[in-house]
Formats: sequence, structure tokens, C-alpha cells
Amino acid sequence: MNIDAHTQFCGVIGNPVEHSLSPAIHNAAFQRLGLNFVYLAWRVESIGDAIRGLRALGNFRGASVTIPHKVGVMPFLDNVEPVAGHIGAVNTIVSDKEALAGYNTDATGALRALREGGAPLKNESVAVLGSGGAARAITFALAGQAGVGRIHLLGIEEQERVALARELRDKTAVDILDAVLEEAVLRRILPEVRVLIHCTPVGMSPKVGASCVPAGLLHRDLTVMDIVYNPRHTRLLTDAAAAGCRIIAGLEMFLYQAAAQFELWTGRPAPIDVMRGVLESHFS
Amino acid sequence: MNIDAHTQFCGVIGNPVEHSLSPAIHNAAFQRLGLNFVYLAWRVESIGDAIRGLRALGNFRGASVTIPHKVGVMPFLDNVEPVAGHIGAVNTIVSDKEALAGYNTDATGALRALREGGAPLKNESVAVLGSGGAARAITFALAGQAGVGRIHLLGIEEQERVALARELRDKTAVDILDAVLEEAVLRRILPEVRVLIHCTPVGMSPKVGASCVPAGLLHRDLTVMDIVYNPRHTRLLTDAAAAGCRIIAGLEMFLYQAAAQFELWTGRPAPIDVMRGVLESHFS
Repeated sequence: MNIDAHTQFCGVIGNPVEHSLSPAIHNAAFQRLGLNFVYLAWRVESIGDAIRGLRALGNFRGASVTIPHKVGVMPFLDNVEPVAGHIGAVNTIVSDKEALAGYNTDATGALRALREGGAPLKNESVAVLGSGGAARAITFALAGQAGVGRIHLLGIEEQERVALARELRDKTAVDILDAVLEEAVLRRILPEVRVLIHCTPVGMSPKVGASCVPAGLLHRDLTVMDIVYNPRHTRLLTDAAAAGCRIIAGLEMFLYQAAAQFELWTGRPAPIDVMRGVLESHFS
Repeated sequence: MNIDAHTQFCGVIGNPVEHSLSPAIHNAAFQRLGLNFVYLAWRVESIGDAIRGLRALGNFRGASVTIPHKVGVMPFLDNVEPVAGHIGAVNTIVSDKEALAGYNTDATGALRALREGGAPLKNESVAVLGSGGAARAITFALAGQAGVGRIHLLGIEEQERVALARELRDKTAVDILDAVLEEAVLRRILPEVRVLIHCTPVGMSPKVGASCVPAGLLHRDLTVMDIVYNPRHTRLLTDAAAAGCRIIAGLEMFLYQAAAQFELWTGRPAPIDVMRGVLESHFS
């Protein structure tokens, strides 16, 4: 990497950021394509100051935004694309001609991971487990661009789940059913579901033996995606594979949200294989 | 360079910055020492916003500050070292434990270039031609740390020169004489002067044939330093070499101010040869 006075820079804004893999994957991708870009990591407490400052620094091209700033960053941007606006969260900033635009590639990244993984979406019935930030991004993407037929939104945070279901009904045309995330409900709905997307932290390291879905309820017509990516093969995905399901690992969603960011900043197709290679090397 | 979530970043703040050589020399030096640092270039209009923003970004280690922000940056820093305070200009910011400190390595860099070049300073008589920003930095350094005996300050901007001479008298103990920069004055003082430092733009490319000092007045007991570094060997330096003077090129001052910055940010001795090599390759 040959950094000079024309090098454009990006970075991840979050707190903490010490464990972020984004610098490794984006820098590897910039290098592979010979682009004069670098990507840094910024622990940020005051999001307003950070954004005002980045706006004042020449060669700033954009940023990834992660916890806890995905919502708080929005008022400091000049414009926000509609899906990100509906989701109410931004994970990507693009600086163009001194204006800052907000995007949500968690949404587009999840869709791309599902499509690349062969999940049937158009007019299909999808179950989403969880109602937090990831579930918000994914359900709005499913209800919007993906054109799914029905979303079963299952969660244990009653208030959060009901609110998200109401917003989806208000802002999109998709058929939404919401219910408590429990075995009886899963047993009733899963037979008609073609895609199951797990958006809770259950199964994340160190509690790697846990799963929200009893293995006996998984059937071979299901495609199962887990947003948990540490471990790479969660209990849920292992059970799903054993039941003959198509599976999509959380790393794929992480990969494709990063690829979408890369494409927004550079205007070039992301070198997916290079980026996946970096991610896999960190988890092997 | 392997940039990750722990990479510290520096950069140059100025306007314009497109032609800055600082990214090339600092990045080469970081790489040589295997330090996890990168150095960028930031064209900045609003210096206050830029500093507030850098303060909010984790992993920010420091910055070079150049025209037009060397004076305007000062109110946004937490503290300013005394020499920079006397000069009234900062060319270096160091971020340490969330506080921003201002330094002036134009001053220390000039002194180091003079010392490395073998110029006699202690109790000696020095002529400084010019009274702008560079002359301010150098005269305060000469009057302070270097302990020169007398400074002849010669300039054509009457008001600026008189003001600088007054400040030097007020804030330092050195003997200051100031006069118009013209041949008659040079003819009178140069015989007793041991070091001549040229701090005006005369002789800079494209007017490479010009010099403030008639060649016949140069004598072999003089050490001559020119802050102009494009061309590397100005008319003044060529005349001085022909007269048997010791000469110090402007590139040396640029090199040592950068080396001092590098040492402030990294706490490591700067790899002078690597940095000089990068500079020389740009001018050859």
C-alpha cells in the first residue's frame, strides 16, 4: 500500500472497535484492486463531533458505523436512503461532493447473502427470530426489495416485537404475523415456512450449545441463516445441516454488508473471495 | 503495511495539501521501523471542526499543520509548548491521553539541520534574511535553545521585521539588530557573520536565477542555509559553494522538522536516511 497525498480514507466508527475485522477485510480488498484507499478504526464517544470532523477532513470517503452509533449518527448526515430511513439505522456513510449520505448495508448484505445462498424469497413465507437491530434491518429488506409473501416475526421482547410489526405493516405491503418466540409457535408455523433467519444472540460464543429452535422442528425444505458468526457453525446451523436444510452462515451476511460498503465507496465490484479469505482466516 | 483495528493514524492538515511530501516520508519511516501507523493528507477549510473531529476519533496520534492553519489551530489545542507559544505558530499536534499538545518542529528542525550541517552557533553572529513565518520560527530557536550571540534580522517588510525584532528583544536575551535587506547592509555586516540563513522565497522555482545576496559578499567563513528547497540547489547555495562556504540545503530543514514530528508521535528515533531517500527521490 503506497499512501500519498491523494489517498482516500475510510474507517469504522463504533465503541468498542478493537476487535473489528473491518479494517483487515477492507484494506485487503483495496490492495487487491490496487485502489488508493485505506481503512482505519475509530473508537468514538461523541458521534456528532466525529462526523463534523470527518466532514472537515479532505480525502474522507466514508465510514462503517456500528454499535452504539447506528441510530445516533442519522441527524448528522445530509441525507439517508429510504430503506435506511425506514429501518431507522445507518451502518454506512458515503462522502460525495462534501455531502454525507447514510445507507444500511446490513439490509442489502443480508439479502445478498440469502440470494447467493440460494434461499427462495419471492412470495415465500419467512420466519425471523428476534426483533432487535438486525431483525429490523432484515425484515425491512425482506418486506421491500425481496418481495417475500409473509413474515413471521417471533421474539421474546414483547414491546419491541409489536412495535416492529406495526412499523412493517405501516411502511410496507408485506403480510406480517408476530408471536412469542417459543416452541409451540415454532411447531405451528415452521411447516409452512421456507426460510428461517435467526437474529438473536443465542448460540454465540461462549454459549455455543444453545439454540432457539428444537432440532426436531427443522425440515429439509427450510433454508436457515444465522446472523451469529462466532462460532462460524452455530448449534442451529449444525442441527439444520443434519436435518438436510440449506444453510447460510453469519459470516456471509457480514461479508456481503462489507462488500456493499466497499462498492459504495469505490464504485468497483468487491473482490468477494479476498474478503471471505480474510474473514475465514480469522475464524479458523 | 498491515492496517488493523489498532493502527494509529496521523496526517497533514493544510490547504492545499495535494503536493505534500509528508505522507510519502512518514509512511516510509513507519514501514521501515515496522510501526503500526499510517499518515494521510487532509485538505481542511474549517480548522476548528477538523480538530474537534480528530479529537473524537480513536487511534488519532497526531498531525502536521501547514499553511494556512499554523496560527489558527492554536486556540483548539489543550496546551502549546513554550517555543511554539513564543513563535505564535504550531506545525505539529500530538494526541496523548485525549489531550492535544502543539509543538513547532520548524524551529527544532532548523536547529538540527544547522547542527548536523556543522554550523557554528553558540555565541556566534547570525544573519537571518526575511521576517515571515519561517524567520520567526528560526530566530526564536536561535535566540533560545541555540544560544547564538547576535542575530542580524534583515527584511524588506519594514513593519513585520520591526515587530519580530521587538518580540525577540522582549522574550529572549539575544542581541538583535534589524535593518533593511539590501546590498549596502549586507556588505557592512557579512564580514562579522558566521551563519547566514535565507528565509525569503527568492530563488524558488521558477525564478531560479534570483538571489538576495550578491555572490561577491560571500566569504569562506560563512555557513549558508537556504530554506528554499525547490530547486534543491538554489542560486544562493551554488554561489556559496563556489565561494568556499559550508552549505545546508532547504531539504535538510524540511527533513529534520519531519524527523522531529516522527519522534514526537512514535517515541522512536527517526530513520533519517529513509526519510532523506524519499525526499531526494522526489527531487531528482
